[in-house]
Amino acid sequence: MKIAILGYGTIGSGVFEVFGTNVDNIKKRAGEEITVKRVLDLREFPGDPVEARLTHDFRDIADDPEIECVVETMGGNEPAYTFLKELLLKGKSVCTSNKELVANHGTELLEIARQKKINFLFEASVGGAIPIIRPLMESFSGDEIIDICGIINGTTNYILTKMDRDGADYADVLAEAQAKGFAERNPEADVEGHDAARKIAILASLACGAEVDFRDVYTEGITKLTALDFEYARRMGRVIKLIASMRKIDGKVFSTVRPMLIPAETPLYTVNDVFNGILVNGRFSKSIMFYGSGAGKLPTASAVAADVIEVAKNRGRNIPIVWSNKKQPIEDRMEQKNDFFIRVKHSDKHKAKEVFSGVHIDELKPENGEFAFIARNMAEKDYEEAAKKVDIINKIRLLNVAQR
Amino acid sequence: MKIAILGYGTIGSGVFEVFGTNVDNIKKRAGEEITVKRVLDLREFPGDPVEARLTHDFRDIADDPEIECVVETMGGNEPAYTFLKELLLKGKSVCTSNKELVANHGTELLEIARQKKINFLFEASVGGAIPIIRPLMESFSGDEIIDICGIINGTTNYILTKMDRDGADYADVLAEAQAKGFAERNPEADVEGHDAARKIAILASLACGAEVDFRDVYTEGITKLTALDFEYARRMGRVIKLIASMRKIDGKVFSTVRPMLIPAETPLYTVNDVFNGILVNGRFSKSIMFYGSGAGKLPTASAVAADVIEVAKNRGRNIPIVWSNKKQPIEDRMEQKNDFFIRVKHSDKHKAKEVFSGVHIDELKPENGEFAFIARNMAEKDYEEAAKKVDIINKIRLLNVAQR
Repeated sequence: MKIAILGYGTIGSGVFEVFGTNVDNIKKRAGEEITVKRVLDLREFPGDPVEARLTHDFRDIADDPEIECVVETMGGNEPAYTFLKELLLKGKSVCTSNKELVANHGTELLEIARQKKINFLFEASVGGAIPIIRPLMESFSGDEIIDICGIINGTTNYILTKMDRDGADYADVLAEAQAKGFAERNPEADVEGHDAARKIAILASLACGAEVDFRDVYTEGITKLTALDFEYARRMGRVIKLIASMRKIDGKVFSTVRPMLIPAETPLYTVNDVFNGILVNGRFSKSIMFYGSGAGKLPTASAVAADVIEVAKNRGRNIPIVWSNKKQPIEDRMEQKNDFFIRVKHSDKHKAKEVFSGVHIDELKPENGEFAFIARNMAEKDYEEAAKKVDIINKIRLLNVAQR
Repeated sequence: MKIAILGYGTIGSGVFEVFGTNVDNIKKRAGEEITVKRVLDLREFPGDPVEARLTHDFRDIADDPEIECVVETMGGNEPAYTFLKELLLKGKSVCTSNKELVANHGTELLEIARQKKINFLFEASVGGAIPIIRPLMESFSGDEIIDICGIINGTTNYILTKMDRDGADYADVLAEAQAKGFAERNPEADVEGHDAARKIAILASLACGAEVDFRDVYTEGITKLTALDFEYARRMGRVIKLIASMRKIDGKVFSTVRPMLIPAETPLYTVNDVFNGILVNGRFSKSIMFYGSGAGKLPTASAVAADVIEVAKNRGRNIPIVWSNKKQPIEDRMEQKNDFFIRVKHSDKHKAKEVFSGVHIDELKPENGEFAFIARNMAEKDYEEAAKKVDIINKIRLLNVAQR
């Protein structure tokens, strides 16, 4: 089988390397040789092994009938979307690592692949090398997924782990992460939770069998967390993680991204640095966790390569993926109940006690002359009402393992 | 699709329940309704919903052309093997949770399924509901698996966790586990490591693409461990786990089952109680861990159900599984190097120092008037030679994360 790669960046060059160096093993698994015929990139790579296959013209790929499968590792919506739609309509299977594209256009591209009896696969779009898309599609098919709860953004997990270990503040750790290349110059997509929201929308679409719009996922980032929050967390025996979740309650679907206080009883507690961990709860299978490096050139490339091999093994056959074009409604988070860890100024102590008098509260040993407490089992809307009446320094929700 | 179940024990009745209660979801995922037409068991189940479908005669299933797929949850080699071979030769796909059968006859049964263009699937044979067989088959296909290292026996993990937490001795914890139903009356297969050896042989066969014979897996059990071993472990910042492993070094394959001292840096450290955790290292993908409940009625049944749905989705097509009838040689463990934690009587201290003088040793703070030390980077054969010359109370190998 002849393939092409769109984009010779980190992941794209990794895919080129995997197909160039793992030849025998791939031939054995795919049942045939797979060769990269063309690589599209606007740049030149003099002296690089890719040179002989490099093209600057998308038509060299789209119009080549010999190329049966195209890997897309450009990232972003455009021109990826326009390219892939044309390729699929032409009957070429596509494998992508582009979560933005899958979150935005997955429904439509899956539908074209279905009609053309080819495949649109995207294992590498969530969790890098961690197998999560295919297990959700296949391994849980006899089950019903009722809860997904994951650490699926490596940049924020690196920052939070550093803040926890070093007692450092957000801005300092971010600057260090940027210097080391673990965070982007413009970190907004990561630190505000948008990247995690796109990924959980992809996982939720597979779990629900319908389109979950990432814009419906209520998202809070990590930018307001301080060293003091981590000190409180430590005293509670918890750590703070950015948690992306999807949860079915009585047939209703909730989905959020936000920092949460994680207890030591869950395996998510030990997911540190740039690692990802995704906990999936099925009605029958109970908690199953997938853990590993959520990014990186060769790990992600190997996940893309596995998709390409599935394409080779499924010629003329669309691998069924239950993700219809029906829209999955996401419930308003305001109805959801949570335990909130809350910090207010000492001068607001009595006011806070009055305002939160309707719920059970546990006072915590204060730091820095503050008043800190946990408000139990409170609806989000009630919290928001109460929060208007008192000056809140910060609040973080608790992950309640028993509820999950 | 009409299916049958062989054996109405814990797992079999779970499979019956899953197909009886998760009807809509399964129909959506499989693309058609799946009904259990017959259940084979020698016993009667008066009043049980299975009653109307129950048969005592295997012919009612084997000779029914309407039954396309058979679930086997009887366990053991016979009559499972004879039944399944006939069913496959008749063109019926088979899904099994029976690790003994897969370890003994997997190669032959897979070959029949290939020839008949049907499927022989066994996701539930290792790790209960944890997806591990299919990820090894599909998700790592672009990679090369170089190392599998897992806690894959729930009974022994429960016993070891209890010994660690309570400072209790092996015999007491085993008795308690038996009383609670976590260990069998005859626990030998679990505590001597034979169950784990069968499971790692299955995983290694998939990783190597050739038949790994479980009888070639060098196996040590947990019966010699004492409370004092756990006390030493704690002081080293480690825990003791029964580790089943497969490792490729320079094209040679090693596979063993034995208790090991696990450092806190690996995610296996937190796999406790009856949970399973399997760490897979690929050449490209690096460490990926699969974690969850490794047993239990409905978790295991849901894994079997997922296999049945794959059968429905792949009518007339054999899902390629790279596990040939070529025999995979397993290297003699004697050539492998390990770090050994060793305890000898105080009176043997000087003798031990002399005997182990060829390797680097670290002395540990002694307990109970013993002499305890770690002998570093020692070939198994050299250890065995040295061990003959001095009275060893106990020895446990260290899991070296850096080496892996």
